Amino acid sequence: MVDRIGNPNLRSKIMPADDAAAKIVPGMTVGMSGFTGAGYPKQVPLALAAMIEAAHLRGEYFKLKVLTGASTAPELDGALAKAGGIDFRLPYQSDPELRARINRGEIEYMDIHLGQVAQYAWFGFLGKLDMAVIEVSAILEDGRLVPSTSVGNNKTWLDLADQVIIEVNAAQPIGLDGMHDIYYGTALPPNRKPIPLVRPGDRIGEPYLRVDPSKVVAVVETQAPDRLGHFAPVDEASRRIAEHLVEFFRHEIRQGRLGPNLLPLQSGVGNIANAVLSGLRSGGFEGLTGFTEVIQDGMLDLIRTDTIQMVSATALSLSPEGVKEFAQNIDHYRSRIVLRPQEMSNHAELIRRLGCLAINGMVEADIYGNVNSTHVAGTSIINGIGGSGDFARNSFLSCFVTPSTAKNGAISCIVPMASHVDHTEHDVAIVVTEQGLADLRGLSPKQRARVIIDNCAHPEYRPLLEDYFLRACRDSRGKHTPHLLNEALAWHERFLLKGDMRA
Amino acid sequence: MVDRIGNPNLRSKIMPADDAAAKIVPGMTVGMSGFTGAGYPKQVPLALAAMIEAAHLRGEYFKLKVLTGASTAPELDGALAKAGGIDFRLPYQSDPELRARINRGEIEYMDIHLGQVAQYAWFGFLGKLDMAVIEVSAILEDGRLVPSTSVGNNKTWLDLADQVIIEVNAAQPIGLDGMHDIYYGTALPPNRKPIPLVRPGDRIGEPYLRVDPSKVVAVVETQAPDRLGHFAPVDEASRRIAEHLVEFFRHEIRQGRLGPNLLPLQSGVGNIANAVLSGLRSGGFEGLTGFTEVIQDGMLDLIRTDTIQMVSATALSLSPEGVKEFAQNIDHYRSRIVLRPQEMSNHAELIRRLGCLAINGMVEADIYGNVNSTHVAGTSIINGIGGSGDFARNSFLSCFVTPSTAKNGAISCIVPMASHVDHTEHDVAIVVTEQGLADLRGLSPKQRARVIIDNCAHPEYRPLLEDYFLRACRDSRGKHTPHLLNEALAWHERFLLKGDMRA
Repeated sequence: MVDRIGNPNLRSKIMPADDAAAKIVPGMTVGMSGFTGAGYPKQVPLALAAMIEAAHLRGEYFKLKVLTGASTAPELDGALAKAGGIDFRLPYQSDPELRARINRGEIEYMDIHLGQVAQYAWFGFLGKLDMAVIEVSAILEDGRLVPSTSVGNNKTWLDLADQVIIEVNAAQPIGLDGMHDIYYGTALPPNRKPIPLVRPGDRIGEPYLRVDPSKVVAVVETQAPDRLGHFAPVDEASRRIAEHLVEFFRHEIRQGRLGPNLLPLQSGVGNIANAVLSGLRSGGFEGLTGFTEVIQDGMLDLIRTDTIQMVSATALSLSPEGVKEFAQNIDHYRSRIVLRPQEMSNHAELIRRLGCLAINGMVEADIYGNVNSTHVAGTSIINGIGGSGDFARNSFLSCFVTPSTAKNGAISCIVPMASHVDHTEHDVAIVVTEQGLADLRGLSPKQRARVIIDNCAHPEYRPLLEDYFLRACRDSRGKHTPHLLNEALAWHERFLLKGDMRA
Repeated sequence: MVDRIGNPNLRSKIMPADDAAAKIVPGMTVGMSGFTGAGYPKQVPLALAAMIEAAHLRGEYFKLKVLTGASTAPELDGALAKAGGIDFRLPYQSDPELRARINRGEIEYMDIHLGQVAQYAWFGFLGKLDMAVIEVSAILEDGRLVPSTSVGNNKTWLDLADQVIIEVNAAQPIGLDGMHDIYYGTALPPNRKPIPLVRPGDRIGEPYLRVDPSKVVAVVETQAPDRLGHFAPVDEASRRIAEHLVEFFRHEIRQGRLGPNLLPLQSGVGNIANAVLSGLRSGGFEGLTGFTEVIQDGMLDLIRTDTIQMVSATALSLSPEGVKEFAQNIDHYRSRIVLRPQEMSNHAELIRRLGCLAINGMVEADIYGNVNSTHVAGTSIINGIGGSGDFARNSFLSCFVTPSTAKNGAISCIVPMASHVDHTEHDVAIVVTEQGLADLRGLSPKQRARVIIDNCAHPEYRPLLEDYFLRACRDSRGKHTPHLLNEALAWHERFLLKGDMRA
């Protein structure tokens, strides 16, 4: 494995994960690599978790503030949460153990737009960063780092941290070299300049991460794959959502509002988003591009078949089969994929300029088009807003997709009032369920309610929504956004009390 | 007045307002000039309103879709609303007659980010634009137009409308010539380029608006001042809000997070924002800049005293005294003010790049930092979101200010759950009332609740909020964002039923 570490100085800092983890002390703020289960450090967090558990057994305090790119894996978030080692976490998570502790009130979690984390750190809004723990796929002779399967906030953590631990993962394909584009042109206001990117595939930076070698306190050799799940087979609801969206894009082309190659696609993480991409493939589209956060199997498939010509992202999040396909044809993929820091993949300036077609999942939408992406019944966090806000507000079209019901029909994903708002009425253009598509562009709240109820609600809930809306139009004090405040959240209360939103 | 109309072709189209208004027929979509009571057409809308009233008396249908820059004045929104001539309105309004009809459900109103109106029109999302009615201060010999006291969406309306009516207002100072910067470098995706602006005062366009003369169906001569209100004297609450903010900025300078010249200021419209600007003047700051929507008296005063060196905006919204001061020293102000289209003054790319300090008023914030800028008790619109969303999400610091109570204490502006969300928890960094300032940066929801209740709530409401929060922390199903759904909106219900949020 020594050939992965070409720099003699950094090679001299190779040590076991336990020794590296011992550099981390209670109270530190630690920035780790990792985005949607890709490119997270594989060994140091596990060693750290063991160390924390031992300290807790001795009755000692040991908690950390943990910052990442986005979600990681059981070996990082799961292990540290289980050890009781996380005091505060941002910006996104999806580990069951961590989520449970956040929702029991044991861990403080800050949900923040993924595209804004880096600048908030640079502004000094997140406090001092003591340590960075970053997975890379190799270290060059001159000390520069070949990034791994995600870039995330690694540039920022490496630049800002007082000390750095590097994990070199020999299981990551060596062919990743050259796929990344690390932009070093950022600055603090008032010294910022335009970011010179006008096409999703533009390379505006360098393929490698820089690190001040004097800050590196440990290098750890690992050889472990990213822990990635399989995608569910495309179900009927996802297939129909994809069909509605594809038909809508075709309609927009006929109306002259979209060109035949569409605009750069952004697609959220998950099975529905994956299905929508599959739908685009069978929809006969060509010459597409992507400007998105994460490349999942559906996107990889579009690249493989040349449906998509170029994709910008910050992470690969592939199934085991996807990983194999990717590794086997990595030269092809390297010519079609650019992996960037998440401050670039999710940058307001770039998303606005490129005019993305943003397609994101959600928990629920209300009849006026407010979208909840994060909370169950207003109080329990699921994963976080991720990049959906970065894209929703700045895209050409902001689309939100969900099956019309959840929990076998016990939950309607179209509700009178969203129990938590992550995307306001001002930022939601298109809502799609398996029932149909609501085009909210240019509509007032009451006009939006009409199309959302008629087109998106499940038939079982449609009369209930209709009833609420009509009574609200009659009895609401203000009739711009009619609501009955004593009923607006009753569906969620009912679900909490009886396990079913239906009366 | 003939010297204001230098182009012979357009001079040949001069006609009375009645004749010009007669070019507008029922069902048209009309884009009008006007932003915060400045630069709206003075005669054609009044003539149009009379025409509509006459048609209605004859039993004929006559309604229009009316688009503007932002709010206008009684001569436009008031007259057309009273005549029953508005079917649909966007993007912002503040006229009492219009607002009342919207809240009675008689007029459909779409509340949309001011920085996104132009691109939505260009995208084709707002339908075909039949007519533009635009006030200018002069027409050059070559037919180009010297803009008036606001630019707003005038460039877009002039470019997109099938027909154009121009009002030339001889009451606007001729010295406005040269103060505007109309950027003609916009494009539709995928052909957009970086906007080459890196300082608030950069001039990247032309001082004049272009119009295809063959589309001009009428030119109307007017001589009437903008209808602008006086500012209330700075009251105690506003003065204390300003003090808290100024002290906070000083603290940020001491911490090294802001430089001595701060960053470009954005300040919302209204008396509190005006007071904050006065506070900055007495706070001893120098070399400031502004990148904002509207220049009010407080900003003018900062320019007059050289506290502010350069301001970018899309409109002047001055009191009668401010208008006089502005006209008398217009050469000085022209060297310090750039008036741009609102798609530039409020552009996500530029606000993010410049790193604005955004200071906007609000209706209410909830304990978790969600902000309602638009609705009374969730249902009645006040004015609209304006540019607050454009700035809140993209600024260096997003600050929201309000007195802690309204209606003589009957309303708490800090509530358990916002009755409408315009700015989500992810987009609110600083909340200020006369009671104090809550710095929400880097905090989880429960940590935010603590500082908002402790620092911002009125002492009379603090124990009630404290009680709600503690019970929610105990009894809420999820404890990430603790809420009691059956109580969360009870304060608003109580206000609607009893006129007082207190039990």
